[in-house]
Amino acid sequence: MSTLREDTQCVIEAALAAAQPKYAVTRALGNLSFGSGRLRVLAIGKAAWGMAQAAYGVLGDRIEQGMVITQYGYAQGKLPRFSIREAGHPVPDLNSVHASEAAIAMVQGLEAADTVLMLISGGGSALFEKPLIPLPLYATTTEALFHCGADITEINIIRRRLSAVKGGRFATLCAPARVVGLLLSDVLGDAPETVASGPISPDPVTSAEAERTLIRLFPDAPELLHALMRRETPKMLPNAETHMIGNLQLLVRSAARALRRLGYDTMVLTDRLHCEAREAGRFLSSIALSHQGETRSIAYLVGGETVVYLNGTGLGGRNQELALAAAPALDGLRDTALFSFSSDGIDGPTNAAGGYVDQRSAGKLRKAQVDINAALDNNDSYHALQACDGLLITGPTGTNLNDIAAVMIRR
Amino acid sequence: MSTLREDTQCVIEAALAAAQPKYAVTRALGNLSFGSGRLRVLAIGKAAWGMAQAAYGVLGDRIEQGMVITQYGYAQGKLPRFSIREAGHPVPDLNSVHASEAAIAMVQGLEAADTVLMLISGGGSALFEKPLIPLPLYATTTEALFHCGADITEINIIRRRLSAVKGGRFATLCAPARVVGLLLSDVLGDAPETVASGPISPDPVTSAEAERTLIRLFPDAPELLHALMRRETPKMLPNAETHMIGNLQLLVRSAARALRRLGYDTMVLTDRLHCEAREAGRFLSSIALSHQGETRSIAYLVGGETVVYLNGTGLGGRNQELALAAAPALDGLRDTALFSFSSDGIDGPTNAAGGYVDQRSAGKLRKAQVDINAALDNNDSYHALQACDGLLITGPTGTNLNDIAAVMIRR
Repeated sequence: MSTLREDTQCVIEAALAAAQPKYAVTRALGNLSFGSGRLRVLAIGKAAWGMAQAAYGVLGDRIEQGMVITQYGYAQGKLPRFSIREAGHPVPDLNSVHASEAAIAMVQGLEAADTVLMLISGGGSALFEKPLIPLPLYATTTEALFHCGADITEINIIRRRLSAVKGGRFATLCAPARVVGLLLSDVLGDAPETVASGPISPDPVTSAEAERTLIRLFPDAPELLHALMRRETPKMLPNAETHMIGNLQLLVRSAARALRRLGYDTMVLTDRLHCEAREAGRFLSSIALSHQGETRSIAYLVGGETVVYLNGTGLGGRNQELALAAAPALDGLRDTALFSFSSDGIDGPTNAAGGYVDQRSAGKLRKAQVDINAALDNNDSYHALQACDGLLITGPTGTNLNDIAAVMIRR
Repeated sequence: MSTLREDTQCVIEAALAAAQPKYAVTRALGNLSFGSGRLRVLAIGKAAWGMAQAAYGVLGDRIEQGMVITQYGYAQGKLPRFSIREAGHPVPDLNSVHASEAAIAMVQGLEAADTVLMLISGGGSALFEKPLIPLPLYATTTEALFHCGADITEINIIRRRLSAVKGGRFATLCAPARVVGLLLSDVLGDAPETVASGPISPDPVTSAEAERTLIRLFPDAPELLHALMRRETPKMLPNAETHMIGNLQLLVRSAARALRRLGYDTMVLTDRLHCEAREAGRFLSSIALSHQGETRSIAYLVGGETVVYLNGTGLGGRNQELALAAAPALDGLRDTALFSFSSDGIDGPTNAAGGYVDQRSAGKLRKAQVDINAALDNNDSYHALQACDGLLITGPTGTNLNDIAAVMIRR
């Protein structure tokens, strides 16, 4: 019989294989046509390289010109007709701005018969950015928003208005050309204006709402930011259309299929999980505690995006905190494990994709004299998991559909 | 069709009816005999009155003498042969001490043929107490432990050693008489030494462990407390036996039955839930969000004991915080509700047993200009729920088997 750790590896591999952008992009392009005008392609986000590769596979030299803007380390080589650029994430850097300026130049001078095919994936918010304020102010604003524990949806309400390309503004820059967007969503609920901050989607949020959000999240914001909140974003974009081609549900379904193949009776609780990471770990471990009497193998699976409130100075990520927080309740149970991982392969500012704990993890940590609560208090889940063989490491995966976690009881 | 609020009421009533101590005590006493010696009965905890009434119903004048020690407002009248006393909870007061001294006097001078029937329910930790330290120091110690967010299990490790009656010491005071305990557990996992701090159960925790716990939770503890941690508790009690006659599983099963009768496909996720109250509410509301497409009525049920970290100065309780935190995600959904309630009828220092929210609650709060996040930050769930018709009020219920919560989707 395989071990719980081997089962975890198998579920992760199956979920990531199904989540590769290749399948979704190839399928979607089979149903689209682009007329006889020029076709230019812009791919942005953590899955940009794979999406561009798939598009080239279908469209080949029909593409007149293309550009990939992805995170450092995420490009996997050259692609014919594409210029490949890497930039900073989660805070945009000068390379983000220069790449975005080049992308804007690429869509200038097009006519109504021409098409911009935009391949959009999560991470695009930082990677594709031309701020309307100086970059240092933009960087400190973004960091302040991330550190106040705000919701990514709220952060994006503000970010869209600080930008020359977000909130539908890039579609305006492409006009009169037609813009067709294929979206891989890493956002719960898949609202198109939130994936990569919606460069070609109308912004549903009004100026008044945006300003209220800014006041609540960032009470000391300078007047310049308030002025930008008041500048309205496009509410209709007749030249643009978007197609959602992949999302967290795809990842959750693939993981559930893999768990079932491994013999687990599998229950998908939610693909909209949104709560504090460590408390989600405690909730899931409570489920495991209560089902120890089961005579068949069972698994409870969730997909979502949890939150970490940073109080400490340690190293870690939301998936690692979720897993570590489950270790005490699993201590000494029978063949019970929990894992949590990020489908983009990078959890927080670490080289791990997530964490794994089982009934032996708490004992290993005691032996290594690592206090679990102290590690959580210091947001240092990475080192604690390292001490109990609990780091899941995949490297960049080429896709980005958010996170999944599961608790597994093997019988 | 009944409303979600009516369904909630129905589930609560069914669960509380099944959880009345009468049934469990009557059934258990049918299987026990007490020889020909004297029989004295001591009932402690929030369910003490109902347990004593049931015992009198079975044993009648076979009981030579009895005593009920329960919380203020929980006694429901006189009982023949019983003296009825009310005392303070969650912090013991002088009435707790005086009642406990009278109970100790009641079990003095018994012989080996005699029996003490002890009816134990949650709340007994505070209600039945004779501290080995001055009461004011005892009170400040207990309060410090509750406010540091510590686990009830950890708090009890320390409380057992501050006491002349806890951690098995009361059974020693009854010797040579036989002691038979019937336990209604309000503690996750039902360890007998943790229900009412285990007056007749051997303490499994050593002096060394107790002292380590004290140092961790209460670094500034005076030397007197350290000395008491070092005084060993009984590790074997040959004159005592305990029978677990009711627990949270009973409450969860009854609620699940009621939900099924109302037409909900019902999934019991756990009867060991143990995480932060508001995050449990967010987790459960994530489940509801993800299952909006269901075509049949479904419910997800949990039992457990959640935790609140007190940072604010408002009024509320863990069940109320759990429910309020679910309101934003339920906003505008279709026929979806969540409730959470304490089976003893008293959630936190309030007159409510818990909270109820549905798809209209967030809208009602907007209209009433109540900010949900601000209310949670101030631990003021009571007033927020009051503003959206979300308080569940039962009054003291006569039982105490911890909490249940459910999310219900009506189709």
